[in-house]
Amino acid sequence: MSDLKNDLILKALRGEQVSRPPVWMMRQAGRYLPDYIKLREKYDFFTRVETPELACEITLQPVDQVGVDAAILFSDILVIPQAMGLTVLLEEGKGPLLPKVVKNKADIDALITTNVEERLSYVMKALRLIKQELNGRVPLIGFAGAPWTILCYMIEGKGSKSFDKAKQFCFTEPELAHTLLQKITDITIAYLKAQVNAGADLVQVFDSWSGMLSPADFKIFAQPYLIQIADAVSGMAPVILFPKGSWYALPELSKSSASGLGIDWSVTPELARQMTNNSITLQGNFDPSKLLAPIKQIKKEVTEMIDAFGTQRYIANLGHGILPNIPVDHARAFVDAVKEYCPNPSHA
Amino acid sequence: MSDLKNDLILKALRGEQVSRPPVWMMRQAGRYLPDYIKLREKYDFFTRVETPELACEITLQPVDQVGVDAAILFSDILVIPQAMGLTVLLEEGKGPLLPKVVKNKADIDALITTNVEERLSYVMKALRLIKQELNGRVPLIGFAGAPWTILCYMIEGKGSKSFDKAKQFCFTEPELAHTLLQKITDITIAYLKAQVNAGADLVQVFDSWSGMLSPADFKIFAQPYLIQIADAVSGMAPVILFPKGSWYALPELSKSSASGLGIDWSVTPELARQMTNNSITLQGNFDPSKLLAPIKQIKKEVTEMIDAFGTQRYIANLGHGILPNIPVDHARAFVDAVKEYCPNPSHA
Repeated sequence: MSDLKNDLILKALRGEQVSRPPVWMMRQAGRYLPDYIKLREKYDFFTRVETPELACEITLQPVDQVGVDAAILFSDILVIPQAMGLTVLLEEGKGPLLPKVVKNKADIDALITTNVEERLSYVMKALRLIKQELNGRVPLIGFAGAPWTILCYMIEGKGSKSFDKAKQFCFTEPELAHTLLQKITDITIAYLKAQVNAGADLVQVFDSWSGMLSPADFKIFAQPYLIQIADAVSGMAPVILFPKGSWYALPELSKSSASGLGIDWSVTPELARQMTNNSITLQGNFDPSKLLAPIKQIKKEVTEMIDAFGTQRYIANLGHGILPNIPVDHARAFVDAVKEYCPNPSHA
Repeated sequence: MSDLKNDLILKALRGEQVSRPPVWMMRQAGRYLPDYIKLREKYDFFTRVETPELACEITLQPVDQVGVDAAILFSDILVIPQAMGLTVLLEEGKGPLLPKVVKNKADIDALITTNVEERLSYVMKALRLIKQELNGRVPLIGFAGAPWTILCYMIEGKGSKSFDKAKQFCFTEPELAHTLLQKITDITIAYLKAQVNAGADLVQVFDSWSGMLSPADFKIFAQPYLIQIADAVSGMAPVILFPKGSWYALPELSKSSASGLGIDWSVTPELARQMTNNSITLQGNFDPSKLLAPIKQIKKEVTEMIDAFGTQRYIANLGHGILPNIPVDHARAFVDAVKEYCPNPSHA
């Protein structure tokens, strides 16, 4: 395996000096890319995820076509509930559906937490293949869903406006909830370690629904498990935690063993720096909808974003996944604007 | 019209000393109440909204049955798009649908902003009837949607995960967006003034989707219109602004002419007090899903919430609307916990 020709993101995560901030986009593989849409017409979602050659092709598309500084494995956070023995259906254009949800202790006891590397061997095959095809061009990001977010899907069986069933379970059966969260945490740690062994240069943990929790409940049901994962994996590879909507957790998480924190666009760069005491690499936080603005405006606002974050200890990204309706040249304008960044003289 | 026997909420909004915090619940009229569900089976949504006797009956139910310290008009924020000439459909259990959305200047020019008092005369009739039936037991809250939130529905035609069409409109056609926002603001001011004239003792402005905006875009597309409304109406009656998800706006809005700010459960009472410099009445912020917890836990956490906010310049409420699946005795436990509040000796 060749050395990395572009290791900007790893340098940024280690807090080393970089010539410019690295850039990638959450959900960059898929959705808005015409070549992805062609594959989507031929193969269903889990065929794309479970066929290493397809996952590899999709993972590489944004590297080749948009010029991002990192590849992220094309997969889904719900492969973990699948590996634990639950059925996950995904109809195109709709959200996920788990026909049999977790309801009680027996359901939790029945969940499998062992042999994730074999159970998700297609992921490891895909990572090895991607690593080979990347040939050191850019680093490869592995990922998993955070335990709270996975619990949400396991209890609700689908997306929700309020995730009140998941919360009700946690509020009325806290011991069972912690048993479930710990099981998810254990398998997730094993899964992320296996991803690193298969070639992932860094990993990101997506807590997509953590912002549904109050600060107090986040500390009970989300944070301890994020920290466990960071502690277990950070010795092997840098870990980025992305607790969407949980801006309030930035001070505590900045003291964790994670190398980076993802933030959404509800928090200003200035406040995020202040809340993390400038002590950790931050990633984000362009409003994904703003990629629908004219290209000139995208470039102007990207420049302002970097002015505000600073060029060091920073990874330019969106504040959430790219939307399916983003024109490719707008996505490219976002990436180019980071690459072309020249500090505003008044801020330099 | 008799004097108010319980004016706790008005005192709290004026910053006057109260014996205990007032309490009400957003969406308290409807949804979870068995007597409401019976009416829902007989009359469709807009019949309930447009028939003063039904709106009155529904408005009074939580006052009689749950013991809240204020009544809030049973209505919908989308009566304003209706008054402006758009069709709004509401199928039970589904979200709203506007079959013909606003797309361009001609659509905006065609919107009606005059004679709202006549166009929504059923609201004024309902308010007068409610005021009479309340007979001074508790104050009556009028309300409207905020211009940004109304724009979201006018452009998207329905709810959305990202409101990217509404944002795209604002980002690519900012002048048209401001023309539309101003039109909505103008009619909303007239509407709220008419509500006060018809008997509303205070009004609340719901910016349900403001939290989708970055702090910078909130300042452009939401804040100026909230402030215009507060400035125009606050001379007649106290105004509460509730920009859901926009915790970042608390410092600026605390300096507005509003008497109160609503907050959701993503911000701690302590931080909200700090961000508003203890200078304004705060309303909130119990996680609506927590009403699914055991009653004992609800009461404990309500007490902790009041400990954290303090008893003065505070209105106990949820952080968003009550959920349809809340047992009535849990809603009552929330209200009772506020009424029974005894300061924790360690906090007293």
